[in-house]
Amino acid sequence: MRGFAEAEFRGRLHKAQTLMAEAGIGAILLTTEPEFRYFSGFLTRFWESPSRPWFLILPAQGDPVAVIPSIGAALMQSTWVQDIRTWPAPNPRDEGVSLLVEALRETGGPVALPSGPESSLRMSLADYARVQCDSGLTFRDDAGITARLRAIKSEAEIDKIRASCAVAGRSFARVPEIAREGVALAQVFRDFQRLLLEEGAEFVSYLAGGAGPDGYGDVISPASDVPLARGDVLMLDTGAVRDGYFCDYDRNFAVGAPSAVAAGAHAQLIEATAAGFEASRPGARACDVFAAMAAITGGGEEAGRLGHGLGLQLTEGLSLSPRDETVLAEGMVITLEPGVETGPGRLMVHEENIVIRAGGAERLSPFAGPELVVI
Amino acid sequence: MRGFAEAEFRGRLHKAQTLMAEAGIGAILLTTEPEFRYFSGFLTRFWESPSRPWFLILPAQGDPVAVIPSIGAALMQSTWVQDIRTWPAPNPRDEGVSLLVEALRETGGPVALPSGPESSLRMSLADYARVQCDSGLTFRDDAGITARLRAIKSEAEIDKIRASCAVAGRSFARVPEIAREGVALAQVFRDFQRLLLEEGAEFVSYLAGGAGPDGYGDVISPASDVPLARGDVLMLDTGAVRDGYFCDYDRNFAVGAPSAVAAGAHAQLIEATAAGFEASRPGARACDVFAAMAAITGGGEEAGRLGHGLGLQLTEGLSLSPRDETVLAEGMVITLEPGVETGPGRLMVHEENIVIRAGGAERLSPFAGPELVVI
Repeated sequence: MRGFAEAEFRGRLHKAQTLMAEAGIGAILLTTEPEFRYFSGFLTRFWESPSRPWFLILPAQGDPVAVIPSIGAALMQSTWVQDIRTWPAPNPRDEGVSLLVEALRETGGPVALPSGPESSLRMSLADYARVQCDSGLTFRDDAGITARLRAIKSEAEIDKIRASCAVAGRSFARVPEIAREGVALAQVFRDFQRLLLEEGAEFVSYLAGGAGPDGYGDVISPASDVPLARGDVLMLDTGAVRDGYFCDYDRNFAVGAPSAVAAGAHAQLIEATAAGFEASRPGARACDVFAAMAAITGGGEEAGRLGHGLGLQLTEGLSLSPRDETVLAEGMVITLEPGVETGPGRLMVHEENIVIRAGGAERLSPFAGPELVVI
Repeated sequence: MRGFAEAEFRGRLHKAQTLMAEAGIGAILLTTEPEFRYFSGFLTRFWESPSRPWFLILPAQGDPVAVIPSIGAALMQSTWVQDIRTWPAPNPRDEGVSLLVEALRETGGPVALPSGPESSLRMSLADYARVQCDSGLTFRDDAGITARLRAIKSEAEIDKIRASCAVAGRSFARVPEIAREGVALAQVFRDFQRLLLEEGAEFVSYLAGGAGPDGYGDVISPASDVPLARGDVLMLDTGAVRDGYFCDYDRNFAVGAPSAVAAGAHAQLIEATAAGFEASRPGARACDVFAAMAAITGGGEEAGRLGHGLGLQLTEGLSLSPRDETVLAEGMVITLEPGVETGPGRLMVHEENIVIRAGGAERLSPFAGPELVVI
């Protein structure tokens, strides 16, 4: 089934309200897509347009209140949210501000917004100041409640991430159809997105990658028009989306027979991933999993992060880094993403997706073997 | 060529600094993707990951300063920005805050952030408060400078939007290949994204649409698995992206011979678009263009907006609505997007993209004719 049963949303709200009571919070105000969707089930690509703010209020007691542009009313009515208040947007003279103020006055304060790492405010600073002033309520951080709840996935959520991973798995298996010596990397990017769509992705929110002899220079640049050459390692890393949930993992391919350096690096990455998998269990800290992988790849502090949380967003929550002491718990979905230097300014990375279970970890992506696939 | 010449960025900065001097602003601080990219040329899909903030400072004099995660250093060095300061992110203990504070102290205040309609803050509220406090500087709005500059496109920008429109035009021409009676709308959505990629889109950031007898219920819902039926009108509306610039227009198709209602509505939409095109000239206000179209479609205040600005984002800047008195000027790129009701809770919409020129408007999308294309 698409979406979730109402019980799933009621469970999320109930947990939030329990934590809100402990923290002395009167209402949580959400403005960003993943936070809004997590509690409402409201799924649309329309957030791509920045013109209209969307507000969801979680009161200390009772059901959520959606304060949204009228263009979203019909779709919102198909969710479990009943209390839907709309205004004709865009209206720069009053972009939902008076409606939001009224709703917040009903729930009462303190009004808490996600304010910690990764959070952002999807409304203008001017309107935020107006809402604070006109409501007369106290505003504060949400004590990390939203992020903490989102970090632990339900079985229904895990199923969705698994389905997303399967889409990418089928697509990676077809890369030999689209990539070979002489094909420009930009063309491979286009064609790989096409494969993802054919294999069941609803959209491809993220695609990164690189290609070069024995590795690539960086993993965030747009694809160039340089054709793949014999001796290159090609890497594709995707965030395909199915039913609103991401996968995020990659695959490396050797264009022609791989060099000893590339083959060795890949085997080492697979070994590091296995070590990370072994270390990923309830009670272990994010930095412990980092250390297990870094012990094999040799990276230290400068290695950056070797994995992260995953779910409604491409990356969310914890970082597998020496600086993150988050304790892993059942239901957390994370990526394992070791990297190795293969030359000056050149690296190879590998990534898989897993979920933390009582006894250890479970694979969500179909783990790659140590041998590079040759195209 | 990809991207822009350095002179383009110098021109944008120079205009900003002229307006900053008038407004008494010491530095503009940018945190969101389009604003960051407009002044730096930094193009990556990596913004999809919310884990790391990115900061660009426009000082009152001199060149921009980028304060960014080290993972972006290599790509940033390929832009015209020279002053690049990095920190190893994510680091929740200091997510670039101290580095940003130091850079802002050098430029001096008041520090201005985009704070008006459509703006948002892509950093945590907690860190924003820390930066305000630790810098000891005054913070304020940017007097609309960023939005005002972005609203007027250069010829190089217009060329990019035109290229994006051409991608969609070639793809719309191929819709009969993928859509027919019996094909599920969700499958049409997947296949149309594939066509856009094949025709030159780098990615498909947005796709909406709908299908139903004589029209559709709303235009922001995800595609359903309901198969297209004879008598349906199918609408596809895309934001395909090429070189970082969007197109945003749609096409309607009749599944089998159209009814008189659908054919009449489509002809009326094309007539309204032509009236909007005629009304779009320097000196006219956004609300005047709205009125020209609404006079034909019969919509009033409740019609919402009948078009908007377009460029680095799917929608940006002005709204063609009764509430928006923005004066059109040469170089503005906008959409014309009339809609008509075809039944209770049922509508048809049409959209084209144009640029305002000295003598009137110029088409960027290949305008559709009054006859519905039958598939």
